[in-house]
Amino acid sequence: MARKINLNADMAEGYGAYDIGNDDGMLSVVQSANVACGFHAGDPNVMARVLRDAAEKGVSIGAHPGFNDLWGFGRRQIQMPLHEIENIMAYQIGALQGMASAAGTSVTHVKPHGALNNMASVDADLADAIARSVRAVDPSLILVAIAGTELDRAGHALGLPVASEVYADRTYADDGNLSSRKLPNAMINDPAHSVAQVMQMVKDGVVTTLGGKQMPVNAHTICVHGDEPTGVDVARAVTAALAEAGLEVVPLPDVPLG
Amino acid sequence: MARKINLNADMAEGYGAYDIGNDDGMLSVVQSANVACGFHAGDPNVMARVLRDAAEKGVSIGAHPGFNDLWGFGRRQIQMPLHEIENIMAYQIGALQGMASAAGTSVTHVKPHGALNNMASVDADLADAIARSVRAVDPSLILVAIAGTELDRAGHALGLPVASEVYADRTYADDGNLSSRKLPNAMINDPAHSVAQVMQMVKDGVVTTLGGKQMPVNAHTICVHGDEPTGVDVARAVTAALAEAGLEVVPLPDVPLG
Amino acid sequence: MARKINLNADMAEGYGAYDIGNDDGMLSVVQSANVACGFHAGDPNVMARVLRDAAEKGVSIGAHPGFNDLWGFGRRQIQMPLHEIENIMAYQIGALQGMASAAGTSVTHVKPHGALNNMASVDADLADAIARSVRAVDPSLILVAIAGTELDRAGHALGLPVASEVYADRTYADDGNLSSRKLPNAMINDPAHSVAQVMQMVKDGVVTTLGGKQMPVNAHTICVHGDEPTGVDVARAVTAALAEAGLEVVPLPDVPLG
Amino acid sequence: MARKINLNADMAEGYGAYDIGNDDGMLSVVQSANVACGFHAGDPNVMARVLRDAAEKGVSIGAHPGFNDLWGFGRRQIQMPLHEIENIMAYQIGALQGMASAAGTSVTHVKPHGALNNMASVDADLADAIARSVRAVDPSLILVAIAGTELDRAGHALGLPVASEVYADRTYADDGNLSSRKLPNAMINDPAHSVAQVMQMVKDGVVTTLGGKQMPVNAHTICVHGDEPTGVDVARAVTAALAEAGLEVVPLPDVPLG
Repeated sequence: MARKINLNADMAEGYGAYDIGNDDGMLSVVQSANVACGFHAGDPNVMARVLRDAAEKGVSIGAHPGFNDLWGFGRRQIQMPLHEIENIMAYQIGALQGMASAAGTSVTHVKPHGALNNMASVDADLADAIARSVRAVDPSLILVAIAGTELDRAGHALGLPVASEVYADRTYADDGNLSSRKLPNAMINDPAHSVAQVMQMVKDGVVTTLGGKQMPVNAHTICVHGDEPTGVDVARAVTAALAEAGLEVVPLPDVPLG
Repeated sequence: MARKINLNADMAEGYGAYDIGNDDGMLSVVQSANVACGFHAGDPNVMARVLRDAAEKGVSIGAHPGFNDLWGFGRRQIQMPLHEIENIMAYQIGALQGMASAAGTSVTHVKPHGALNNMASVDADLADAIARSVRAVDPSLILVAIAGTELDRAGHALGLPVASEVYADRTYADDGNLSSRKLPNAMINDPAHSVAQVMQMVKDGVVTTLGGKQMPVNAHTICVHGDEPTGVDVARAVTAALAEAGLEVVPLPDVPLG
Repeated sequence: MARKINLNADMAEGYGAYDIGNDDGMLSVVQSANVACGFHAGDPNVMARVLRDAAEKGVSIGAHPGFNDLWGFGRRQIQMPLHEIENIMAYQIGALQGMASAAGTSVTHVKPHGALNNMASVDADLADAIARSVRAVDPSLILVAIAGTELDRAGHALGLPVASEVYADRTYADDGNLSSRKLPNAMINDPAHSVAQVMQMVKDGVVTTLGGKQMPVNAHTICVHGDEPTGVDVARAVTAALAEAGLEVVPLPDVPLG
Repeated sequence: MARKINLNADMAEGYGAYDIGNDDGMLSVVQSANVACGFHAGDPNVMARVLRDAAEKGVSIGAHPGFNDLWGFGRRQIQMPLHEIENIMAYQIGALQGMASAAGTSVTHVKPHGALNNMASVDADLADAIARSVRAVDPSLILVAIAGTELDRAGHALGLPVASEVYADRTYADDGNLSSRKLPNAMINDPAHSVAQVMQMVKDGVVTTLGGKQMPVNAHTICVHGDEPTGVDVARAVTAALAEAGLEVVPLPDVPLG
């Protein structure tokens, strides 16, 4: 039986008259959508549109909650007590669940956005708060985390299903984190380069960092970015390469975790 | 068997450092809470606090969604397409459902807030959109509406359970609507006056309007306002009078509708 | 002496990570910028960038205040008391003045945005409130209005300098208003068509409406839209045609009004 | 000639239906108002009301800008680049200046609010950015700062007039900062205690910290808090004690600085 793997992309990141990304294009090529929930991006109208289109195309739905900071697109660190973090998580996941119900679909995973995700990678208490909030809303929700982070640890500790995520179009720093967006080579926009990185991850279980280190990775799901003009091309090339290598790309709930 | 009736109050209407109403006081005397959902009032923290306290006290939970207008407290009319109304309804109901799950309780009714409720009383298309959104999220949710309004009609037309609401502490205009908040006698702050109005409604099925008209009403649930300093006293007096008259005051899902 | 005329464009309509329009391109071709002031679009960072670039290029600055409705981009009608309209006008004009001072430049005109402008065209009381607020902040500010509208009348009535505006890239309805943005032919994206419309306005003092009517217009300033991909091309073509016809395109304060 | 001193209070901290503080009461007893500017509190309507009343009563006006965080009331630390801090400062000062012009008065001082003020006390770069923004908008604006802080240093370094502020109703920690609001004895609500602290500051030039240390202070202006129920009583008692001791309480621009 073919090994199963998933491609995910962040979506519904527009707001009112503002548009970012390429939701239509990405919905045609990935199998799972991380949907912004209105705090850092994603008003109810753009959320509804993505949910309806995702339902039609069999794309599975995840909540992509962030800090309450539309101006900063959720990329600014905000200091908040842990119980407030739990509250903004539950609120956003629930909002998407309500809209998903109205669209005849359901939410099956959660992936924090931006600064909230970055902070949860290294802050154990924050990671625990996020895992607690996901379990409190629905313990069957899959938590998406980078293997080896505090969020990954917290999800497993609370018994959540945890999907390990790797990036097709982001480079890695020697410390194992994604390289900073401020660096010129943070993004990989060449499909061939992305394919090479993904194939190395999937076949060899390692990624080559910017400093040349071979770092072990674990890949249940592969993230591609729709706000890059090259996003759809990268996703198509990676999908084709995975298929050629005998892997089956499926919605996240169909990937065996563990 | 005693006839069953319900008292409800709007709650969680604070925001951050701002506080309005008397959630603690009202949670001790009413059996159902209409919880603001973050658009016109009610941040995730104040929502969480009310949900936890309501769960402890056996108070049933309703969503109290409004326009996305914190500045206007949801009391300003905003012109929006009907599908956008459906989206803001589903989003807010879902957000409260998610937080209720996290608090170990659930949402059992929906009552629109402020300008949205006022507009839905008289605008058939808007009322239909609201009823559609409630049904799409969860068709078992009880819709709270004033008997005879367009919202009442729309709820019944779509097969939703509909609870008829009357007001203990608001006066009625001759056209059957609540009298305008701009009038000096819009609110009833004297508990004895509220008791008299409620008893007339419950026993005789009518209310005396400001112009002296006897207007028929139907009462499954009685609203009292926690943002009036007299709210708790009014609610206590009404509860005592109902009990003395042999009625049983219960959470909204326990009131037989129809 | 050559007759003087002005080209203006709306700018600074982005917000955080969101971008709309082509501020860089438009700043190179028009002589006056209508700068969004943070309520419907335009955060302080994008405002600062446009102010600095406009100052460098000798582009004159106008405030472009709108309803407090980022989600609706200021295009939704919101019902507010007149004194509140005056307050949101003074706040936004002042905010831009403060930022302009910090950038070493100043604000010389005001043009309301979106629904606020549309409502002020036909609602005399709202138009008076807007004119009062402009005069109260600084009576030397030029009010930009379409000739014949209530806003035009109100500005003159209060003794404000009023600049009559026409549109290079919008079609006109038979009632004299701009044709609705919902119509497929609301925008003119063909530079030659824009040039023809502008030349007719400038030379003959009329515009041909969608219904074929010849309607008189008065043109101190010509608006072009930077959020159309064709905006810069239209502005360049119009500028060239005006120059060829012997007109001088200048910043708005240099156009003789009256 | 009597030594001159000033009492200031934060005002206009409400938002829409939400009210905090006692603007009416405080405007009758202090000579200078720090007016919230809409980012962490203070919508244009409440700002307009305070400006009009302050103008009538001869109370001088200061801007009280904060982080763009209504939910957190400006008390949450937000990490932003320095040029963005300058932009939010200029925007808010300007907005108040515009509204002050419309109310026939003017802005004469600036005092940052909450987390922004706390951070500027200890972060030299942030303090410099704030001082730069004040100077860029209007170099005659008085910067209010606690003597010895980074903000105090930055204001003097850029040549701004700087008023040293002490607190009548807050206790001081041994490190010279205000004691944390999380401590039970952070606020002084007993007028006699406030009078004693103020008299010690004014006569002896020192304050006794919570740990019993005698710390030197410099007082051009004394802050009292209107959101404490005891605020007006404290301000009255302090004013009476200052007068009895032969000092003259005046608007901030009338206090000789230096």
